[in-house]
Amino acid sequence: MAKPGIPKGTRDFSPIEVSKRQYIIQIIKTNFEKFGYQPIETPSFENSETLMGKYGEEGDRLIFKILNSGDKVKKADLAALEANNLAKFSNSLSEKALRYDLTVPFARYVVQRQGELEFPFKRYQIQPVWRADNPQKGRFREFYQCDADVVGSTSLWQEVELVQLYDSVFAELGLEGVTIKINNRKILSGIAEVIGASDKLIDFTVALDKLDKIGEDGVKKEMLEKGISAEAIEKVQPLFHFTGTISEKISQLSELLSSSEEGRKGVEELQFICDTIAKLGLKKSNFDLDVTLARGLNYYTGAIFEVAAPKTVAMGSIGGGGRYDDLTGIFGLKNMSGVGISFGLDRIYLVLDELGLFPETVTVSSKAIFFNYGNEEAFYAMQAITRLRNEGIKVELYPDKAKLDKQFKHAEKRQIPFVVMAGSNEIATESFSVKDLITGEKHTLDFNGLKTLLQ
Amino acid sequence: MAKPGIPKGTRDFSPIEVSKRQYIIQIIKTNFEKFGYQPIETPSFENSETLMGKYGEEGDRLIFKILNSGDKVKKADLAALEANNLAKFSNSLSEKALRYDLTVPFARYVVQRQGELEFPFKRYQIQPVWRADNPQKGRFREFYQCDADVVGSTSLWQEVELVQLYDSVFAELGLEGVTIKINNRKILSGIAEVIGASDKLIDFTVALDKLDKIGEDGVKKEMLEKGISAEAIEKVQPLFHFTGTISEKISQLSELLSSSEEGRKGVEELQFICDTIAKLGLKKSNFDLDVTLARGLNYYTGAIFEVAAPKTVAMGSIGGGGRYDDLTGIFGLKNMSGVGISFGLDRIYLVLDELGLFPETVTVSSKAIFFNYGNEEAFYAMQAITRLRNEGIKVELYPDKAKLDKQFKHAEKRQIPFVVMAGSNEIATESFSVKDLITGEKHTLDFNGLKTLLQ
Repeated sequence: MAKPGIPKGTRDFSPIEVSKRQYIIQIIKTNFEKFGYQPIETPSFENSETLMGKYGEEGDRLIFKILNSGDKVKKADLAALEANNLAKFSNSLSEKALRYDLTVPFARYVVQRQGELEFPFKRYQIQPVWRADNPQKGRFREFYQCDADVVGSTSLWQEVELVQLYDSVFAELGLEGVTIKINNRKILSGIAEVIGASDKLIDFTVALDKLDKIGEDGVKKEMLEKGISAEAIEKVQPLFHFTGTISEKISQLSELLSSSEEGRKGVEELQFICDTIAKLGLKKSNFDLDVTLARGLNYYTGAIFEVAAPKTVAMGSIGGGGRYDDLTGIFGLKNMSGVGISFGLDRIYLVLDELGLFPETVTVSSKAIFFNYGNEEAFYAMQAITRLRNEGIKVELYPDKAKLDKQFKHAEKRQIPFVVMAGSNEIATESFSVKDLITGEKHTLDFNGLKTLLQ
Repeated sequence: MAKPGIPKGTRDFSPIEVSKRQYIIQIIKTNFEKFGYQPIETPSFENSETLMGKYGEEGDRLIFKILNSGDKVKKADLAALEANNLAKFSNSLSEKALRYDLTVPFARYVVQRQGELEFPFKRYQIQPVWRADNPQKGRFREFYQCDADVVGSTSLWQEVELVQLYDSVFAELGLEGVTIKINNRKILSGIAEVIGASDKLIDFTVALDKLDKIGEDGVKKEMLEKGISAEAIEKVQPLFHFTGTISEKISQLSELLSSSEEGRKGVEELQFICDTIAKLGLKKSNFDLDVTLARGLNYYTGAIFEVAAPKTVAMGSIGGGGRYDDLTGIFGLKNMSGVGISFGLDRIYLVLDELGLFPETVTVSSKAIFFNYGNEEAFYAMQAITRLRNEGIKVELYPDKAKLDKQFKHAEKRQIPFVVMAGSNEIATESFSVKDLITGEKHTLDFNGLKTLLQ
């Protein structure tokens, strides 16, 4: 029989991997709650119509569809298959699909429960999502998203809080040197107005983003090639030397976008958020304004966030988010502004691993294993084990009466720090012989001594 | 637009529901770890061949299959559809399927990693599974399983520990009066030998299980109808008056099954487990021997466990498990004995809810909300909020400058116990006015006083 495997793009997680992931998730969760976000969970699969058409054509193709059960497959649309309309054929075989992200299910939840929810509603959600993407390094077909969003208020205090929330999580993870970058969709719209070409905005920001790599001339060349006029480029000349403090950058933008009403609104929003963050201070993270930040351009309507890993680690963004003024409009509930952020669990894991930032306490091993010398001795051991577990101490009994050598090797391979040996001598004196496998030290202790050692 | 919904048999979980579920899961998890079990996680979907054929014909039908993406649907086996071989047609459209339980993926994991695992390997796994079952009260298409299993040792100490583990979890949940029932497959085989009909064993136990309801005569009548001879029934007459302590029951079984070698082995195993449990003692749970217990008959080879909810609650079993001597044989790895138990999260939830056993600390609300009187006051509030959050206290700012009445109602609906009001007077005196929404009491406090109150 061939060794079994798992589908490509999916992963098994070993005990130490689960523990490390749980360590990160726990810190994210605690902070979400500290900031007033409440957990919800939605089903792994939704009705197809809830998901289809929400992520663009590319997204639709990447949604995993669930095959109808039993007799329902008889409804297969063979004419569509014949006509090579594979999407239609697939849809005739499927009514449900796996969650593609947490945002659309959240919007569905809010619309479905709008009568019972109290707004503004702050929710967090930490669940897996699935995408039929081509797997590659760091990109999986099953992965977790960790999202916090608030809907029902346009207050910019929420943007302020979300920056603090990022900072708070990364500080607690001991991750220094991350940069929380902010931009605003209205700034981008203002730039588009100024260069006189909304349709060229993406080409413009993509080119501008390469400034570090290909220099001012290179960027301008690319812009011209993309059909942005020399005159337009001239108008936003300050963006090519866009440095300094956040306030200095905001001043430059204010001047540059003075002719655009939307641009001015964007500057005002940025100003409030950045000033307030500056006055409140952050714990560990850097905070910067990045006008090339344009993620989810068609989606966000106000603030746009992205978090860059510390420069010492070659890793893309480890988080992102922003404000979207019409989250629930797709399900018919208008005027429900939302803003939220997401943490990239897999990448945060890789960054912490690379920098050696997982604490030593993140471990899966028991504190001690009791050797098994036979049923009588095992019973003596089990009495102590039961009492230790009642104190919350992780201990175990080697289940079989095996050679001592084998039991020692087991303890070592499992990286259990202490072995407890209790044979007839220890039983007679109500004691326990303990060996510290790290230092090699040996002790003979009574129960309370043992408990103190292992606590 | 029609209000969106979710697929039948699935559930959204609201904040309080998630928190209550997490409360249970956290206690199960902590106890799994205290007993030396380590967490693993497997992908939500497996290759179809990993799952198909492992759960019987009925199981195969209940497995959710994932439709192949893109061009692959062209491989649809239309001849099979024509021939009304729907299973074959479905299989031609699908290569992956959603996890149906946690046991088969665990077996797959062990076989795949046999070279790197250290045996005996104690793993726990808490993840959702999916079944295309007909939804009904308490039966869902997506639900969590919480399993602990150990593979690689036949030691009965593991059975002893698993009984303790059940007891420890239910004690920590404050759930008194559960009954952990034990039986042994070898006892059942012994009975089959004695009545001279292995093929009638299920009919026999099903009928015997009705003793309470239909009485001895009713049970015997049913047995005769099922083709069990009067002579055979006579031979196991003691089972109709099978009462007393566990030791008394074991004595009766010992006598009854003296002619069956396998039966005697079963008695011996039971004796060791029950004696040891009696000597070690349990915290809260009852422990009993139930010879009608036959769950997963074709699967278990030794001990069989089931946990009954307290008699005051009308609820079936809230947990079950047992020993299976050939867990990994399905994937070609022989002689790997396993034993494990499972907790029924959904039912435990219902039991705790009905008995009012969720602690008041299981809540999702913030400890206090600061009212918003405008940006200047909000900034003063946010300075305090930031410091309180740094102390781990859940607090929030009402995001908008709304009418006080509206802010009060929001706090009440969210069941937030304290509101903090800080206007120009408070700012001038560096104080905070706090109202306790439960008692109606008002205080004026400095920051430290506020911190102490909310801690």
